[in-house]
Amino acid sequence: MDGPGNSEARESLTKRRLRLWLRMLTVTRATEAGLRGYLREQHGTTLPRFDVMAALWRRGEAIPMGELSRMLLVSNGNATDVVGRLEKEGLVQRTPCTEDRRTVRVTLTEAGRAQFEGMASGHEAELSRLFGALNLDDLETMRAILRKVSPQMDGAKEKA
Amino acid sequence: MDGPGNSEARESLTKRRLRLWLRMLTVTRATEAGLRGYLREQHGTTLPRFDVMAALWRRGEAIPMGELSRMLLVSNGNATDVVGRLEKEGLVQRTPCTEDRRTVRVTLTEAGRAQFEGMASGHEAELSRLFGALNLDDLETMRAILRKVSPQMDGAKEKA
Repeated sequence: MDGPGNSEARESLTKRRLRLWLRMLTVTRATEAGLRGYLREQHGTTLPRFDVMAALWRRGEAIPMGELSRMLLVSNGNATDVVGRLEKEGLVQRTPCTEDRRTVRVTLTEAGRAQFEGMASGHEAELSRLFGALNLDDLETMRAILRKVSPQMDGAKEKA
Repeated sequence: MDGPGNSEARESLTKRRLRLWLRMLTVTRATEAGLRGYLREQHGTTLPRFDVMAALWRRGEAIPMGELSRMLLVSNGNATDVVGRLEKEGLVQRTPCTEDRRTVRVTLTEAGRAQFEGMASGHEAELSRLFGALNLDDLETMRAILRKVSPQMDGAKEKA
C-alpha cells in the first residue's frame, strides 16, 4: 500500500525497500557467520544440525519429518540428511507414525537434549554479543515491523 | 550494553534478542524463497548468479575476485564457480590485473549488463510485493536499527 503518492515517491519506496533488504541480508549473513563460528569452534557442530535440534527442543515432542523440513525452510532432502546423521550419533530418534506408516516423526533423545542444552546457552550469549547494541525498544520496534512483513509471505508460518 | 538492570531484565533481553533473531531468519529465508522463485520461474536463473551480477552492476567497474567473494559473504570457491559459469555464457569477463597477475578482476559484459537489467526491475517489483506492508517510516526505522548492529560484526563491511 504505497498510498496515492506520485511516481517519484513510489520509486523512492521501491529503492528503499531494496536497500533495507540488502542490509537485512548482510546482517543476517554476518550473524549466521558468527553463530556458525561459535558452533564450529566450541562444539564442532554446524548450524543446520543446531537448527534441527533447536526446533525439536522448542517443540518438546515428536515432529513429523515433513513439518520439520518446512519449519527449517530447507529442502526435505537436506533436513533428512541432517536428521540421518544426528540419528547415527544417537542424538535424535525417528519413529514411524502409528496411524500412518508413511509418516516419520522425529524426537530428541536424552543425549540429544543434553547436548543441545550445552550449546544453547553459549549460542544465546554469542547472539547477545552480536546484537549487543540493540536495547529493548529497538528489539520491540523491529519485531513489530517484521510482524507486518510476515503475513505477506507464503509458507512463512512461524512461532517466533 | 544492558545497563544496570536486574538479572530478570537481562534474561528477558537475551530471550528477546533470540526471538528477534528467529523472526529475522524467518523473514529473510521467506524473502529469499520468494526472490528465488521469481528468478527461477521468470528468468531460469539462481540467486547466487543474480547476486554476483548485481554486485558487478552496482559497482560499474571491475571487482577483484577476492573482494567479490567477501562482498557476497560466500566462500571463495562458491563465487568462483558462479563466475566461471557466467563467463562460459558470456555474461561476465575475467581479466588478470596488470600490476599483479595473481589477482583476477571480474566485470559484466554488455550481454551480462543487458540480462541483469532485464531481471532487476522484476526483482525490485517482487521485493516491493513481499515488503509491501512496510511504509517509509518502517523502512527508515529498521535501517537505523540494523545500522546499530552492523558495527559489532566482523567482516560485515557493506554499502547498503
